Amino acid sequence: MTQQDTKKEEELKHSTDEMASFCKRKGFVYQNSEIYGGYAGLFDYGPVGVDLKNNLKSELWKHFVHGRDDVAGIDGSIITHPQVWVSSGHAEGFGDILIDCTKCRAKIRADHHITDNLGLQTDGITVEQVDEIVKKENLVCPNCGGDFSKAQKFLLMFTTQVGAAQTKTSTAFLRPETAQVIFTDFKLVQENARMKLPFGIAQTGKAFRNEISPRNFLFRMREFEQFEIEYFVDPKKIGECPYHNEVKDRKLLVWTQKAQNSGADHEEMTMQQLLDTKEVKSPWHTYWLIQLRDWFVKVGCKAENFRLRVHLKEELAHYAAACVDIEYKYPFGWAELHGMADRTTYDLDQHIKHSGKDLAFFDEETKTKIVGHVIEPSQGVDRAFLTIMYDAYNDDKERGNIVLKFDPKLSPVKAAIFPLVNKEGLPEIATEIYKELRQRYNVQYDRSGSVGRRYARQDEIGTPYCITVDFDTLKDNAVTIRDRDTTTQRRVKINELKNIIRDLIEGDVKFESVGEKIANK
Amino acid sequence: MTQQDTKKEEELKHSTDEMASFCKRKGFVYQNSEIYGGYAGLFDYGPVGVDLKNNLKSELWKHFVHGRDDVAGIDGSIITHPQVWVSSGHAEGFGDILIDCTKCRAKIRADHHITDNLGLQTDGITVEQVDEIVKKENLVCPNCGGDFSKAQKFLLMFTTQVGAAQTKTSTAFLRPETAQVIFTDFKLVQENARMKLPFGIAQTGKAFRNEISPRNFLFRMREFEQFEIEYFVDPKKIGECPYHNEVKDRKLLVWTQKAQNSGADHEEMTMQQLLDTKEVKSPWHTYWLIQLRDWFVKVGCKAENFRLRVHLKEELAHYAAACVDIEYKYPFGWAELHGMADRTTYDLDQHIKHSGKDLAFFDEETKTKIVGHVIEPSQGVDRAFLTIMYDAYNDDKERGNIVLKFDPKLSPVKAAIFPLVNKEGLPEIATEIYKELRQRYNVQYDRSGSVGRRYARQDEIGTPYCITVDFDTLKDNAVTIRDRDTTTQRRVKINELKNIIRDLIEGDVKFESVGEKIANK
Repeated sequence: MTQQDTKKEEELKHSTDEMASFCKRKGFVYQNSEIYGGYAGLFDYGPVGVDLKNNLKSELWKHFVHGRDDVAGIDGSIITHPQVWVSSGHAEGFGDILIDCTKCRAKIRADHHITDNLGLQTDGITVEQVDEIVKKENLVCPNCGGDFSKAQKFLLMFTTQVGAAQTKTSTAFLRPETAQVIFTDFKLVQENARMKLPFGIAQTGKAFRNEISPRNFLFRMREFEQFEIEYFVDPKKIGECPYHNEVKDRKLLVWTQKAQNSGADHEEMTMQQLLDTKEVKSPWHTYWLIQLRDWFVKVGCKAENFRLRVHLKEELAHYAAACVDIEYKYPFGWAELHGMADRTTYDLDQHIKHSGKDLAFFDEETKTKIVGHVIEPSQGVDRAFLTIMYDAYNDDKERGNIVLKFDPKLSPVKAAIFPLVNKEGLPEIATEIYKELRQRYNVQYDRSGSVGRRYARQDEIGTPYCITVDFDTLKDNAVTIRDRDTTTQRRVKINELKNIIRDLIEGDVKFESVGEKIANK
Repeated sequence: MTQQDTKKEEELKHSTDEMASFCKRKGFVYQNSEIYGGYAGLFDYGPVGVDLKNNLKSELWKHFVHGRDDVAGIDGSIITHPQVWVSSGHAEGFGDILIDCTKCRAKIRADHHITDNLGLQTDGITVEQVDEIVKKENLVCPNCGGDFSKAQKFLLMFTTQVGAAQTKTSTAFLRPETAQVIFTDFKLVQENARMKLPFGIAQTGKAFRNEISPRNFLFRMREFEQFEIEYFVDPKKIGECPYHNEVKDRKLLVWTQKAQNSGADHEEMTMQQLLDTKEVKSPWHTYWLIQLRDWFVKVGCKAENFRLRVHLKEELAHYAAACVDIEYKYPFGWAELHGMADRTTYDLDQHIKHSGKDLAFFDEETKTKIVGHVIEPSQGVDRAFLTIMYDAYNDDKERGNIVLKFDPKLSPVKAAIFPLVNKEGLPEIATEIYKELRQRYNVQYDRSGSVGRRYARQDEIGTPYCITVDFDTLKDNAVTIRDRDTTTQRRVKINELKNIIRDLIEGDVKFESVGEKIANK
């Protein structure tokens, strides 16, 4: 590494640490078990973090499940029958390659070590190739300089024992993805929800991966949350998507195999051009990429921070015909925010084979059985959380505080109510307002410190509206609402407040049109 | 067992199986990994189940976290630092006693076996006592008649390995309760949320117990969800609750030690009388019992199906000074729906001792450090789900179908939209309405079968409002809304529909007052 590289890495590290520290200070995210020195790759969401995360999950669900007639949801178990992971291929193939130091016993992830030291591309690398490179390049332990033993595969799934007796099926795995539970429940859901191809099944829930080196705060965790959709299409119709015309001329930044070959960076291309590269096989794939990317922009993320990255052939998982990441420009570089694989009929085929059960869709019209071809939007919820934090984060020098400019629907606290002073009945009126609003929303009441200090506190957790009860309130039964992003204020009648707040949050009215303008004093 | 007992048990089993079968048929709950023969004690929530469960969790959160100024929430990790469970005492003490058959190797839970065979009370039974009883009463294996080996403790926590290398802290547990993560985060949350005693920290999330014999559908699962509040009170003020006057004269059915001694069943008593028994120590305990019980009644459960059951001294967990269950009358008998322990300062004391960290609250006024005394409302979310299913379930002989009478806030689907016939533009109007409503709610569009059949389908998943587009709609731009519980209908203008549905669901208006009455045809 050059001196410049080291400096850059330190800056990035600093930026990640700064976000982690901000998240802790304001109650968004804590390191798990901090009082015992922490536990790597595990985090707890704090009082405002839990609501931001819940709102995020709920908005994803409303948009992609309730908002569509072709997606049904489930919430499956984390521990499942071990055969599920044998059938899916995970029990055999889901792992990283490790090299052990023969001297200090450190266990190092081979691909990272090779890339960091030699700058080599390591996607899809095999155990044999690692051994060869280690030998040829004389790679040694970064901690103590010791030699490495032979490389070996390390299973990324956590295992546990179920029941009191050790039996053939008592060793189970914590699911490393929510997807498989969707495949095993496919038939039940399809029948219950009366779905016809094409349709999807969605799930939000925890997944676990025993990462060798968790890193970058919420980016690579050992316990994380996923929002996944398995979208099933008739394989004969995988080349025709009825929505293709709506998206084919949409342009995005894309990093392709071609870019890789020419050493170029990403380039702008249309979804039709992306399909023409043949690195993405189906218009359903580009359709879903646009849906997910658009959702982030809809909830306020900056369009320029997103790009697509097409997986190289050698990177593809055993089940995938193609895979595209939606990448976000994190402080530590472009990295996967969302992964979308074209899983073909692989998973359903495997479960049909191993379970002997019929997981095909029966088409009434043609009286044929069809095994669905799967396009899989797979969203890390914690990565979405991190992305939304980064894009909302504004260091407002004028105000002298951070302002988190969340979409009000995502904001953990929807409004804060302040009595201007703690006397003359103002706290009582403010408390009444607080009690009424909290029936509907998460709101805060704050009577401590100057109003400026109270505004700053709310800015830093992204509360969109602050309501102040002042001396005029005693005369006009109205209060002042202050808008987080513009700091402009409007005067609103107390009896209209509850519905105005709702209309503002739901985006049904604009702030400039509620109540009355306040003359500059 | 007498013949009558056997018959009764079969009936109860039938009733539980019937609910499980109904839940599967309508898409509420499936057995996990059904295609591989299932996996005991693990279940998946289906397309309507996931929304009922999410609504249930969200209503609990709104009521007990957002609806109060003295409770803050978190969402912590399932895998935590193993020391957490050493400090809490779980690593040592959290288990069941097992007896192994020396012949067929079956592992049997000793307390259940002794109670089933001898009718003895086994709460708090020790390994030595089990051995004594097995010997004295000549208990043998229920499967093969073989003898039992010596009894032994079986750890109820699932264990797993974290990281690639085996170290002192690499063997971790899946949390058997969410509570401990609250205790370890206590100080961070108290400071972030600017809380003063008394206050609570709430958490919703998965917990895991390696049950020897999971049973009764969602009642005893290996993977389940909890909603817990740890409510911290100044120990000097544990005997004074400012809300005591509001609840002291409230009467509930209660089963106490006294009832146990006299062989009587539960009796009705006031919360003051319950405190007077000294089996419950603090008015904060009775206050919280009333809050939780009232919540169930508020969301539509039948008051007569709830009672309190005071734990006997020998049943108390190692950390509890007192414990009271809120029991529900399940088809298989009265059983714990909610457990509420008086945990004293035990847990915080343990974590202070083992971590060396300061987890006391610093009281600015008296300049003293106070370790919070904990009252713990602990709610199983899946048991709440089951309770709500049982209480909503109505077999309506007149209609010829099941009607699930959920509170509309809990209903998975809020409204269904039907075109009366599939022609003359009715489907197009119905689709427009559907698209508008789904922006806000989970709604369904159904054009298949008679309207009666479509009503029945919605009754069976508990949809409160069905909207029919008929020929008159073409003239009056109005539709018919049908109320699930009464089957009465009202005529409503299409342009008012969206807000009427919202007002109905939020309980802001009564069904009888929306739109216009429809004359009997």
